[in-house]
Amino acid sequence: MNNRKVYISGEIVPEVDAKISIFDSAVLLGDTVTESTRTFNFKPFKLDEHLERLYKSFKLTRIDPQMTIEEMKKVSLELLEINKDNYKTNEDCWLVHNISRGHSITGGNPALQVSKPTVMIYTQPMNLVLWAPFYTKGCHAVTPPTRMVPSQSLDARIKNRSRLFYTLAEIEAKLVDPDAQSVILDIHGNVAENKGGNIFMIKDGKLITPTTANCLEGLTRNSTMEIARSLDIEVIEAVIQSYDLATSDEMFITSTPYSIMPATKFNGMPIADGNVGPVTKKLIQGWSDRVGVDIIKQAEDQLHKH
Amino acid sequence: MNNRKVYISGEIVPEVDAKISIFDSAVLLGDTVTESTRTFNFKPFKLDEHLERLYKSFKLTRIDPQMTIEEMKKVSLELLEINKDNYKTNEDCWLVHNISRGHSITGGNPALQVSKPTVMIYTQPMNLVLWAPFYTKGCHAVTPPTRMVPSQSLDARIKNRSRLFYTLAEIEAKLVDPDAQSVILDIHGNVAENKGGNIFMIKDGKLITPTTANCLEGLTRNSTMEIARSLDIEVIEAVIQSYDLATSDEMFITSTPYSIMPATKFNGMPIADGNVGPVTKKLIQGWSDRVGVDIIKQAEDQLHKH
Amino acid sequence: MNNRKVYISGEIVPEVDAKISIFDSAVLLGDTVTESTRTFNFKPFKLDEHLERLYKSFKLTRIDPQMTIEEMKKVSLELLEINKDNYKTNEDCWLVHNISRGHSITGGNPALQVSKPTVMIYTQPMNLVLWAPFYTKGCHAVTPPTRMVPSQSLDARIKNRSRLFYTLAEIEAKLVDPDAQSVILDIHGNVAENKGGNIFMIKDGKLITPTTANCLEGLTRNSTMEIARSLDIEVIEAVIQSYDLATSDEMFITSTPYSIMPATKFNGMPIADGNVGPVTKKLIQGWSDRVGVDIIKQAEDQLHKH
Amino acid sequence: MNNRKVYISGEIVPEVDAKISIFDSAVLLGDTVTESTRTFNFKPFKLDEHLERLYKSFKLTRIDPQMTIEEMKKVSLELLEINKDNYKTNEDCWLVHNISRGHSITGGNPALQVSKPTVMIYTQPMNLVLWAPFYTKGCHAVTPPTRMVPSQSLDARIKNRSRLFYTLAEIEAKLVDPDAQSVILDIHGNVAENKGGNIFMIKDGKLITPTTANCLEGLTRNSTMEIARSLDIEVIEAVIQSYDLATSDEMFITSTPYSIMPATKFNGMPIADGNVGPVTKKLIQGWSDRVGVDIIKQAEDQLHKH
Amino acid sequence: MNNRKVYISGEIVPEVDAKISIFDSAVLLGDTVTESTRTFNFKPFKLDEHLERLYKSFKLTRIDPQMTIEEMKKVSLELLEINKDNYKTNEDCWLVHNISRGHSITGGNPALQVSKPTVMIYTQPMNLVLWAPFYTKGCHAVTPPTRMVPSQSLDARIKNRSRLFYTLAEIEAKLVDPDAQSVILDIHGNVAENKGGNIFMIKDGKLITPTTANCLEGLTRNSTMEIARSLDIEVIEAVIQSYDLATSDEMFITSTPYSIMPATKFNGMPIADGNVGPVTKKLIQGWSDRVGVDIIKQAEDQLHKH
Amino acid sequence: MNNRKVYISGEIVPEVDAKISIFDSAVLLGDTVTESTRTFNFKPFKLDEHLERLYKSFKLTRIDPQMTIEEMKKVSLELLEINKDNYKTNEDCWLVHNISRGHSITGGNPALQVSKPTVMIYTQPMNLVLWAPFYTKGCHAVTPPTRMVPSQSLDARIKNRSRLFYTLAEIEAKLVDPDAQSVILDIHGNVAENKGGNIFMIKDGKLITPTTANCLEGLTRNSTMEIARSLDIEVIEAVIQSYDLATSDEMFITSTPYSIMPATKFNGMPIADGNVGPVTKKLIQGWSDRVGVDIIKQAEDQLHKH
Repeated sequence: MNNRKVYISGEIVPEVDAKISIFDSAVLLGDTVTESTRTFNFKPFKLDEHLERLYKSFKLTRIDPQMTIEEMKKVSLELLEINKDNYKTNEDCWLVHNISRGHSITGGNPALQVSKPTVMIYTQPMNLVLWAPFYTKGCHAVTPPTRMVPSQSLDARIKNRSRLFYTLAEIEAKLVDPDAQSVILDIHGNVAENKGGNIFMIKDGKLITPTTANCLEGLTRNSTMEIARSLDIEVIEAVIQSYDLATSDEMFITSTPYSIMPATKFNGMPIADGNVGPVTKKLIQGWSDRVGVDIIKQAEDQLHKH
Repeated sequence: MNNRKVYISGEIVPEVDAKISIFDSAVLLGDTVTESTRTFNFKPFKLDEHLERLYKSFKLTRIDPQMTIEEMKKVSLELLEINKDNYKTNEDCWLVHNISRGHSITGGNPALQVSKPTVMIYTQPMNLVLWAPFYTKGCHAVTPPTRMVPSQSLDARIKNRSRLFYTLAEIEAKLVDPDAQSVILDIHGNVAENKGGNIFMIKDGKLITPTTANCLEGLTRNSTMEIARSLDIEVIEAVIQSYDLATSDEMFITSTPYSIMPATKFNGMPIADGNVGPVTKKLIQGWSDRVGVDIIKQAEDQLHKH
Repeated sequence: MNNRKVYISGEIVPEVDAKISIFDSAVLLGDTVTESTRTFNFKPFKLDEHLERLYKSFKLTRIDPQMTIEEMKKVSLELLEINKDNYKTNEDCWLVHNISRGHSITGGNPALQVSKPTVMIYTQPMNLVLWAPFYTKGCHAVTPPTRMVPSQSLDARIKNRSRLFYTLAEIEAKLVDPDAQSVILDIHGNVAENKGGNIFMIKDGKLITPTTANCLEGLTRNSTMEIARSLDIEVIEAVIQSYDLATSDEMFITSTPYSIMPATKFNGMPIADGNVGPVTKKLIQGWSDRVGVDIIKQAEDQLHKH
Repeated sequence: MNNRKVYISGEIVPEVDAKISIFDSAVLLGDTVTESTRTFNFKPFKLDEHLERLYKSFKLTRIDPQMTIEEMKKVSLELLEINKDNYKTNEDCWLVHNISRGHSITGGNPALQVSKPTVMIYTQPMNLVLWAPFYTKGCHAVTPPTRMVPSQSLDARIKNRSRLFYTLAEIEAKLVDPDAQSVILDIHGNVAENKGGNIFMIKDGKLITPTTANCLEGLTRNSTMEIARSLDIEVIEAVIQSYDLATSDEMFITSTPYSIMPATKFNGMPIADGNVGPVTKKLIQGWSDRVGVDIIKQAEDQLHKH
Repeated sequence: MNNRKVYISGEIVPEVDAKISIFDSAVLLGDTVTESTRTFNFKPFKLDEHLERLYKSFKLTRIDPQMTIEEMKKVSLELLEINKDNYKTNEDCWLVHNISRGHSITGGNPALQVSKPTVMIYTQPMNLVLWAPFYTKGCHAVTPPTRMVPSQSLDARIKNRSRLFYTLAEIEAKLVDPDAQSVILDIHGNVAENKGGNIFMIKDGKLITPTTANCLEGLTRNSTMEIARSLDIEVIEAVIQSYDLATSDEMFITSTPYSIMPATKFNGMPIADGNVGPVTKKLIQGWSDRVGVDIIKQAEDQLHKH
Repeated sequence: MNNRKVYISGEIVPEVDAKISIFDSAVLLGDTVTESTRTFNFKPFKLDEHLERLYKSFKLTRIDPQMTIEEMKKVSLELLEINKDNYKTNEDCWLVHNISRGHSITGGNPALQVSKPTVMIYTQPMNLVLWAPFYTKGCHAVTPPTRMVPSQSLDARIKNRSRLFYTLAEIEAKLVDPDAQSVILDIHGNVAENKGGNIFMIKDGKLITPTTANCLEGLTRNSTMEIARSLDIEVIEAVIQSYDLATSDEMFITSTPYSIMPATKFNGMPIADGNVGPVTKKLIQGWSDRVGVDIIKQAEDQLHKH
């Protein structure tokens, strides 16, 4: 048991009491938008950008948060402060926002917001144990047969929690290898994204990633591109396909918790010589420099304690 | 306030206490499968069929309910009995099943079920006020620009709660008319389904509805086809498009709460003469006969009390 | 009644007598290519570019105009001169070219040009009353459910008059708002064009518009990009989707008559703060400077007289 | 020169004076719906069905004809009577309806009907010279690279005159053979229709044609299916592809003027032994019996006089 | 080493000498059409149907076999007779036809047949060891991420040897399970076929299989449908998707060597209770009856000797 | 007859004896990857790049060549040396690699490599007679109705010999003109590639070609882009469509044997004035300079001798 506190619609409650009604539209309709920020040195990284994207998601879903972005930021930082003592020095955490349209009337009009929204904000330990080994040996990236939901059905950039298809795609990828990480293709067969992450490859020294026409515009994706440019690595957004990944020099996935997760195997084939490559290493180092945390060490320390 | 009770993972609790953790995969990942049964004369209608479909959804999502279908039925009927006194004679209710994979670890492997599933079962008053006027005047059916999630991304027949795109499509339809009911097209432009219902049309005395290649295999859909056949109405499952609906003789939507909702307007155009047609009326009467409840009267009574 | 004259296949006739046979392929087969040039200070703007595009359309449709581009220009300028006195000082006009394959034999081979082409050239008052209010308050841009005709069926760059689908899409958009302007998506859900105009957005100071893979290569589009570059605004041609428009900083549509029509609402959502933005204003000013006419004033003057 | 008369919006005028304004939406926007009926023994065949389909097209395009279907029929029959003396005994004619939304304001709102519609009705000699040889030797059916406009862009069942893409597809087919008749595929590669006709094949004694999901619901198509059924030939509507046509036993195209046009060659390959087959002949005979005219003789007589 | 003889373009040669030039279009262009017939009791099963399909493939590929179908049959039966002594009593064999356009000039026009075709006909032992265990325990059917070549690129019904994509799909399926058998989806996500076989399922006593719009029209498929009908089992050709297979009562694959291969697992999920079902058993028995060979016993005998 | 020698799996044999078993997976499954290098002045051009691409194809197809890339190069150069005397001074040749997975067991698991691979390496005279006239008069480029195999079925960049669809598309193009060269569109209607070549166009002085998302990444394509850049010609990789080609200033196809083949006609329409354009000539000259051979003269000399 822990002493962490959670913010729910204006209240600060112990994690164990952090509950919402089963009649909430989060539960009944997957009607939730979300952001997951992480801290480095217990400072939330790019919180402003996360909140800006959150407010774009509010706009597209017509959820009225009934809070300004400044209020949202204020309570978020307060919550982080409240929870500070639950984390050790050098320990980092998630800061998660999950907001639904609120109470849902069974059989009612789902397009109407009939109550206050349900604003859930919480911190969670930044558990990196699952991913820690991948920094040095790389993960196995696998394309499942399930295809990405197309943007004309639901744009991946609306960061939401109606994500069952992600879990199903991940289950399929893990039929190949229990440790596999999914590389989901779109309905045209182009590389879209990982469940929760963006796909990158290195070819001839250039960093290449899909445009956001078929995937989330990840903030870690954007930061990685910034870091690459600061290291004089050319960055290209393009249509990429399985052939590109299979014949790339290096490959990795980006996401909030791990920043960069090297992939050294793709559908059973080694990427290049099967080792984490030099540009990837440079970019991970760039990340460590950028955030003031040795991100590999932080993850591996968890692994060793584990 | 009410005295209704809810079943949550083995416990019977008052509705006001029916809450789940914000760390549940229902909230975090839209990772929930569901069924909504309704009663007629307070008897659950086709409960066995609903539970069979629920167990198909468990299979496809690899959620382990940790209960047999017989146990699920038993607790469902017990819950209905417990709640009986909260409903008046002649009043009917929803019996809803909503089951998630359970606890979700932030940043964990979503493909793994790490805890007991969260089994939510509850009853809700069968509120028909929104739909009641449509039995006699028909609704306005509207096609939103958003397209159905294709089956190669997430099959609509897995009845789940990752349904944000439904709400967004419904919002778009309601831009045309605040009372509009959505007719969602698939990515090829063929008619798929209503958010929560199936689309039917009558042409030259025949009942026509899309195949289940792009929509939920609704149990109300199936019952309507059975009733039609029992009335010697030919039933055809086919690809249908907006042109077919616009030039049909009659049109309606089927769903659990209202059984049949006539549509007399489609994208601003009247269906035939703009009145509810004779075959639709016959099918509604067939439903009333089949379930032993005058379904129009039941809905209109609510409207008048309202 | 007016004294305007029209050129039809070599004859100059009063507008009231400007008629073509109902057996013309323009009427029977929508077999017409076209250009609409406008004047600024009664000088035709980019007439050469319009005629060049017209001759590309001739080529693709295999219509033989039986006139060189120089002859076409000569008669066009002569017609403008003839009509000059029908327009007041400071008044501008359309100069429209509409050319069909000519006589069509009912049941004949449509691929053969069996007669002289029908060359229609005329001027029309530049009526801006419908659009004038949008310069300051912006229009409401709406995506209809109908999708753009794909280029593998008929390339939008062949500027033609087989445009029924445009009218139907516009009718659908106007179901949402009688003043709505359509934003037609292509069959993949990407933004294509407005009926008669191109779509632009501003994001982070950059001007973004779809590539011409799914839309007309508008000359007003091209001029707007030139003006933007001359003002040191970066111009990007890319795949854009509804999400991009909804979260853009500014949005507008370009077309010959109004040059730039700001959009401040998209599918019911405000664009940014719902006001015409600074880059759009700068570009409109750029247009006014470029053409030597205060384009907002010209339109608003019409509105006030109206 | 001839004495035929034409009906234009209430007036009966000589054909030579049958003209419409170049500002008509027929000319400016391809905004016209249409029907082409033919006579057999100078009686219009299935005129009621043609007018019913015309009124469906009015509905979908929101063109208000400002005439009831009965009035439309009355003036049509009167026009036929007026023109009777222009046709010899045993000669047949087209009876064509072409109706536009009327006057179009350059730069105005195309969705509004601002004037009376333009109702054009006329007769034309049933010239069968082009097709006559095909009854006995069969035509060469060719698939052009251009694909059918998909129904989500413009449903082929709205019989309209925005048909430039048809002419372009026909031009492509005629690159292969100047006498080729087009077999247009849809964007999925399935057989859709001929420019102006429906595609049929015979396989193992069964008559097979595409469903109307991607093509016009031709009245000649429907009559052919009726005749086939009356001759105990099984009729199947299905997805068909080039392979099916190439390996069929017989193939033909149906359209109003020629009823049935056998195809004995497909993309350079003979259909079966390259001769018109027995089922096709039986169906042509069935047509002749049904309409009381020897349709082959009628066409060949024209050819010989020619 | 064996004594089997092979027919190559008119010569009978020992298998060891059965070679073709590396400049043959079979090797250089995958320009080969093929049939694989098998014997039962050493009689070739449906040889006429196989040869008819072969001649359809010749037609579509414009390969001129320079032999009539009767000559092809004659040499095939002669070859079988020649090889008879190489097979034991009760042993069966493949009779394979593989015919290419012949010599290919490097850099020449591939559309021209510049030489005699290369006609390869041979027999091979009917090795059933790989599949034998599946008759009783069922195989694991797996959907690879690679999608079926669409018919608008190359119709699967042209039975050809340009089949690299089959091998790649099969490799992907075997990443999940080394014994997996592929279930290849088409680009719309619908079930197409197995590399070399057709997919069937049983639901509520009915036998369901995809239409041939996206797969080979297998002769074993057709025979299985005939046998089913003779056993009063309803047969349906329809669009089917992964959901259908996963929730089917029984599933199997048909192909020439094994006739019917039950599948009891699909993407890691059991089909029904995970055992070979009663309808499948009945159909296998129907096959044994039809061909006069106990097909399970024949396969298992091989397994035991193995 | 000639004295050329061929390398087959370790043996050097006369061309006439260069044969492989009809049981090879090259013959039975189109299971072959390939490269075609040509010499200039009898030096193989970009052999390293060809072999690197070959090894990418091995990787994607999981064919194990059982030779290192260095060994492959060594035997290739040795073979060239051996054959040198068969070619005259100033004569050039092909150096072709064609490697299959080896022996294929009829009915066996195609995903397994059960034997040594079959490594075929040979030289062939560089016969340019077919193409020679096109350097000065240009070829006729034609789009067939068949569409490119999409990358989600088989990526065109895996240079393989399962190419029947190429031959069929080429046959269709040649229905229009026996000398036509195919311009194959992808399933979205975008320009993909020529059977064996890449498509380029010049517009406003810029060199434009499709990205490799739907076509082979041709080495001649890449060299042409390098040469263009060295001549200060801007190079753009983009989506291009038939309209772009038809309205381009110049058009050509690139492939190993001819380097650049100008196209002066497209689907019956002249490209610009129908003559080979100045940028194309400059690029051909650039090629001649780059490789030290007057490529036009070399081809025309063959023509004259022919």
